[in-house]
Amino acid sequence: MHAFEISEYQYRLNRVKEVMSERGMDVLLVSDPANMNYLSGYDGWSFYVHQLLIVLLEADQPIWVGRHMDANAAKITTWLDPSHIVPYPDDYVQSLKKHPYDFVADILREEKVENACIAVELDNYYFSAKCFDTLNKQLTKATFLDATSLVNKVRIVKSDTEITYMKRAAAIVENAMKVGIDAIAEGVRECDVVGQVYEAQISGTTEFGGDYPAIVPLIPSGERTSTPHLTWTEQPYKEGDPVIIELAGCYRRYHAPMARTVMIGDPPQNIKDLAEVVIEGLNETLARIGPGMTCEEVEAVWNKSIEKSGFIKESRIGYSVGLSYPPDWGERTASLRKGDKTVLQPNMTFHLIPGIWLDNYGMELSEAFRVTDKGCETLTNFPRQLFVKD
Amino acid sequence: MHAFEISEYQYRLNRVKEVMSERGMDVLLVSDPANMNYLSGYDGWSFYVHQLLIVLLEADQPIWVGRHMDANAAKITTWLDPSHIVPYPDDYVQSLKKHPYDFVADILREEKVENACIAVELDNYYFSAKCFDTLNKQLTKATFLDATSLVNKVRIVKSDTEITYMKRAAAIVENAMKVGIDAIAEGVRECDVVGQVYEAQISGTTEFGGDYPAIVPLIPSGERTSTPHLTWTEQPYKEGDPVIIELAGCYRRYHAPMARTVMIGDPPQNIKDLAEVVIEGLNETLARIGPGMTCEEVEAVWNKSIEKSGFIKESRIGYSVGLSYPPDWGERTASLRKGDKTVLQPNMTFHLIPGIWLDNYGMELSEAFRVTDKGCETLTNFPRQLFVKD
Repeated sequence: MHAFEISEYQYRLNRVKEVMSERGMDVLLVSDPANMNYLSGYDGWSFYVHQLLIVLLEADQPIWVGRHMDANAAKITTWLDPSHIVPYPDDYVQSLKKHPYDFVADILREEKVENACIAVELDNYYFSAKCFDTLNKQLTKATFLDATSLVNKVRIVKSDTEITYMKRAAAIVENAMKVGIDAIAEGVRECDVVGQVYEAQISGTTEFGGDYPAIVPLIPSGERTSTPHLTWTEQPYKEGDPVIIELAGCYRRYHAPMARTVMIGDPPQNIKDLAEVVIEGLNETLARIGPGMTCEEVEAVWNKSIEKSGFIKESRIGYSVGLSYPPDWGERTASLRKGDKTVLQPNMTFHLIPGIWLDNYGMELSEAFRVTDKGCETLTNFPRQLFVKD
Repeated sequence: MHAFEISEYQYRLNRVKEVMSERGMDVLLVSDPANMNYLSGYDGWSFYVHQLLIVLLEADQPIWVGRHMDANAAKITTWLDPSHIVPYPDDYVQSLKKHPYDFVADILREEKVENACIAVELDNYYFSAKCFDTLNKQLTKATFLDATSLVNKVRIVKSDTEITYMKRAAAIVENAMKVGIDAIAEGVRECDVVGQVYEAQISGTTEFGGDYPAIVPLIPSGERTSTPHLTWTEQPYKEGDPVIIELAGCYRRYHAPMARTVMIGDPPQNIKDLAEVVIEGLNETLARIGPGMTCEEVEAVWNKSIEKSGFIKESRIGYSVGLSYPPDWGERTASLRKGDKTVLQPNMTFHLIPGIWLDNYGMELSEAFRVTDKGCETLTNFPRQLFVKD
């Protein structure tokens, strides 16, 4: 039923507690849904209301706190004892009069940690300014610490089972990308292509069912390729359009992302040139990646490769990926960019996506990779080229 | 190109400014992606990094602030002059050293409002505790006010064009629901049904292309129907399973949600009874809804209807819907529950979803409705029944 053995969840919890202990934290409030899933197995689309795990340094299990109607989801999907599932009544939901973190403060008082060192995920989508404001007003003697990315950083090296799940996600994204490239043609509506892509992402393979990726297909065409995060329209594709397809396969919340670029009709010379530069840069970078290298050293390989072409890439060229929920499939820890001194270790997983966006068009060609004992391996096996649809 | 006339965006902005003025706000920082879209037209999946609109009471246009690579998306999708699009460099992204709200503070100083009354959306997914902490440290002489739901409340009464979009979304959800009910059968994998549902949601109709709904299909089966927010598995459906399908159609970010329940095989008496109670309650409630009623009066009609059955429903029975981004398609303003005294007005739109979740199974049957001059009309026209698959 659970995605992992209970012992794996407990191992993860102990690793988090080690960091808490080093940093003087008595309590950690985990509001990031991916971090909640990582430690407890909890999996439901209930993160649009406030919910969290309370990790007490001195307790064997975290406490799940969420909305009353979601308590059965916690019973079904987590390894926690029912006594560790503590729901709040429905009148706390989206009310301007009472707040779920009033309820959280009550639990912390019951646990006698209201004056303790309490760490929170300060920069997270699911820990609003109001959550922190409420805690500060309720627990005036507590010391609050910032634990943004604490659990995320524990997640950065994957277990073998996690890698297996990411490879299943990779098989799914290979299918979905092929479906998308095959379907794109002059006169076909963008939404109809994306409908087919989605079907492939969710049905998955005959062996593994697909889960919803944390980001929808990013599939701009024409001038809209000058920026990476536009989705799709209801308009038909036109002859001469470039189309960027960035999407992920997802298996039990683990992601394998991939991007490719398609030309409808003959590619102009500038797009052919840009594709060559990006492919060469990708190949040279992947050939060099290995354990012991830092993230900024990876970026430097890329940068040196494209230097001769005259193209400039200001933004990061990749980030760690794995377990995730909307709105981001990245782990928000290591980035492949100048200044990031994270050292690569075996079973770290990244999305290497050196996209280039110019004034009127852009190009993306990416690979998700796993750091191995001696180098790296890409999760997917998919032609690394500019696709041309005649 | 834009979803609405520029005059409609300007009208919305002026209505927001009226409220700002009444509440003594000089500046409003709008970080909710739906509110950003409502005021500027901005539409991209870039909300996984910090971005916002700065609304200055004294300026004709808001300022869009976001990541450098998303500036072209702002140029393409908003009605703002390029001078009002102010991107931050990529090294602000997911860094523990510098924060995008440091950049925001710089803009506020340039605009000479660093000591003014600055309102923020305090309880929003996209305004983290760290955002507020950063602003407080940067702008020590500002007065901060809470503007949670300020723009959302301006959004609550829809224009005729917005209603048109919601009706297109409704046509899409009717299709998608039919596809889902048709596909569910003993032995079929849940993920394969959802793949087909997604295809219908995104392809849309021959006239209107689908956009991604803010919530994925919530489609639990068997015991998993005892809670509303589970998604799907890769397991095949079994004879005797109830299946809840809750999903939305989406057109240009406007939503029409709907829920139905399906039985695989003969429904047991308890499920038949529960369906009857819910359908009768829905029918009686819809017959009574009209302008001038309060949200809590709507809930009271429902409550009186089911009282005789012995079933109890603790949670709210609905909420306002419309324009939205993940993770929620609700507007987070009015809820159909005790204590909510919001008065219904023509062109308010709600999702009436009186779900009941018991220990081992649950039931959902819902309708999205628009308040009319004299009563209400449902957005969809879909059989209001328990579906039985033999």
